[in-house]
Amino acid sequence: MAGELAGPLSHHRRWYPDVVQQVAPPKTFDLGPGYLEPALLPVDLLRQAYADALAEFGSAALSYGPNAGALPLRTLLADRLGPPCTPDHIMVTSGTSHALHLIAAVLFRRGDLVLVEQVGYDLGHAILSDSGLRLRAVPMDASGMVPEALDRELGAAGGSRTFVYLNPTFHNPTGILVPSARRRELIEVASRHEAMIVEDDAYAELALGRSGMPDSMAGLSGYRGVIRLGSFSKSLAPGLRLGWLAADPGTVARIQAHGVFDSGGSPNHLASLAVTTLLMNGSYDWHLNWLRSCLRARRDVLVDTLRAGLGEEFTFDRPGGGFFLWLNAEGGQDEQALLTSARDAGVIVNPGSRFGRTASPGIRLAFSFNSPRRLAAAAHRLAAAWNPTDRTHSCT
Amino acid sequence: MAGELAGPLSHHRRWYPDVVQQVAPPKTFDLGPGYLEPALLPVDLLRQAYADALAEFGSAALSYGPNAGALPLRTLLADRLGPPCTPDHIMVTSGTSHALHLIAAVLFRRGDLVLVEQVGYDLGHAILSDSGLRLRAVPMDASGMVPEALDRELGAAGGSRTFVYLNPTFHNPTGILVPSARRRELIEVASRHEAMIVEDDAYAELALGRSGMPDSMAGLSGYRGVIRLGSFSKSLAPGLRLGWLAADPGTVARIQAHGVFDSGGSPNHLASLAVTTLLMNGSYDWHLNWLRSCLRARRDVLVDTLRAGLGEEFTFDRPGGGFFLWLNAEGGQDEQALLTSARDAGVIVNPGSRFGRTASPGIRLAFSFNSPRRLAAAAHRLAAAWNPTDRTHSCT
Repeated sequence: MAGELAGPLSHHRRWYPDVVQQVAPPKTFDLGPGYLEPALLPVDLLRQAYADALAEFGSAALSYGPNAGALPLRTLLADRLGPPCTPDHIMVTSGTSHALHLIAAVLFRRGDLVLVEQVGYDLGHAILSDSGLRLRAVPMDASGMVPEALDRELGAAGGSRTFVYLNPTFHNPTGILVPSARRRELIEVASRHEAMIVEDDAYAELALGRSGMPDSMAGLSGYRGVIRLGSFSKSLAPGLRLGWLAADPGTVARIQAHGVFDSGGSPNHLASLAVTTLLMNGSYDWHLNWLRSCLRARRDVLVDTLRAGLGEEFTFDRPGGGFFLWLNAEGGQDEQALLTSARDAGVIVNPGSRFGRTASPGIRLAFSFNSPRRLAAAAHRLAAAWNPTDRTHSCT
Repeated sequence: MAGELAGPLSHHRRWYPDVVQQVAPPKTFDLGPGYLEPALLPVDLLRQAYADALAEFGSAALSYGPNAGALPLRTLLADRLGPPCTPDHIMVTSGTSHALHLIAAVLFRRGDLVLVEQVGYDLGHAILSDSGLRLRAVPMDASGMVPEALDRELGAAGGSRTFVYLNPTFHNPTGILVPSARRRELIEVASRHEAMIVEDDAYAELALGRSGMPDSMAGLSGYRGVIRLGSFSKSLAPGLRLGWLAADPGTVARIQAHGVFDSGGSPNHLASLAVTTLLMNGSYDWHLNWLRSCLRARRDVLVDTLRAGLGEEFTFDRPGGGFFLWLNAEGGQDEQALLTSARDAGVIVNPGSRFGRTASPGIRLAFSFNSPRRLAAAAHRLAAAWNPTDRTHSCT
């Protein structure tokens, strides 16, 4: 095996424990976190963005911002989202996590019900349950949440205050892109039961293919009954703590009326103006194109190396975007055994059970957190660790 | 009257509507907001701080930070707060407003009781009531909340989950600095009833006199039963959205265990590292000294001009720090009439009734949001507007 050395820390260059949330264990390839790797975080671009924001907006960038966020950013975002979205549909947040917490804390009450995907973003689910909401899982198929199942669950919930939490675009962890027809069906079902949909679209700008993208569920609904969450954590840098929510103006007004905004103003005002400059001068789109090409290279090397090395008992699609490749282990393997043998081979992966109940064991592999060379080496190790007969190429 | 022209907007230089939360009405002197005026917001210092943070921490400043905040900042803050405070006592927040919302949402439940000062920070009270808490006002005297009254209210609350929200240092709106003996009494009462104290200390670093400061209530309690809130909004810039809470490590652990931090990491990671560089290289203390001298000049010109111009029916102390001068109108005046005549004279002030129930009409004047020249002009106008016989100096 051998190949590229993992080094004392996977990401040791200026990547200090106690400064970042998570550091890979020594001598491992960490395919766990849904993070951008250090080399994909645009240090120079953001240094310039903060300098530009302070030059352009001066001390206004350092005072309290409007409760819903600075109008220049909300205007640019509304333009990107397209009609009927207007600045009044947009509220700036400290990322999608903050938006989700706000929705739970401001629009709902402890004991209210959230219907979530059977397999979904575990940390998002934890925000909701830590806010006192009851979670119930709705079955999925290869196109996402099953409308008939949602209908059933909403019917069973009766008159109780309920919303639906979905991640339809490059779903975490499965990578599914819910097609337009399914989106419309889910909107119709939720609307019929007067249940709000929260559409977590953190990965929406990270399409890696050439085919067109379905409209957002918020767009398809005309921004009625759907709150869409967006983030700059996946497309720029999570350390900014910057995202947004888009919803009908009445819902935006309800959220921003909370005293926490009257007192503190816009969440993360200076960061929002730094990103405003990137959107205004075209740097954001330039960066996004570059980032997509980097992620495409990473996805492809991971997919191709695993295809060449893994046996037929593992099935997976080439993800159309986002950060994740989802492996189905359909040969009667044991999830814990797969994790242990991966770890013994120096590769950290995320077990599917962390995200919900899967039919057969599933494994989530992030292709965002390592270089193509390291992803190839990690994939070789996984293939060797998980195959009874070693089909991998030798690295030596 | 005349004097300095207020201009088309009080703060028009790079101070755009829709970028900042609040812009003064045309042709007025706005002594309302508890903000730093544009000239006191350190644009150059913060441009350098962001550049330094990105140079020092590189991409680690752009990834997810540890849930409780980056250790370098927590270490520096713990050193400033002194023993027994350690980094485990500190959690980084997006300002005191965010901290207050977190305490209400994570540690308490809708319907729980908060005992607040009879006259206190109205927007802080709104955060608590918008979080579903019940508020009850506790009488104050010239030294702050009255311990016997607190004892009575805590006794009446019985076994219900209750905490006490206080702003003991350069109190908003009255400017009161609660003396050590009173702090100890309040801690003793709350502790006897097993009620937590939340000590909002947003103005604690803005002492303007030469005399020593009382220890914080958190410090006096040994960080047991008191959560102290600090902010860089009043000492650096509110647009950073950066503050902290200090409490016993168990309480910090409870708050940071909420899913919103597991998912999003440290609130405002990059801003926290920018401020870290300012604390490390001494710029923060240098800036604080400069800011105090600016605020001292502003306070003194406001106090001295009002002293010379107002009649004996207005009483007030020279505030020892913070942003606010509190005027008691003890000559049977009507609060609304005072507001109206001030406004007619082109000066906006805050009515005391906005902050709670006062014995006689009170007026809060912020000396943080205007230059000394403008404060002098505003004070002349107030004296002329509120005096039956004009004792003010002529400006012409």
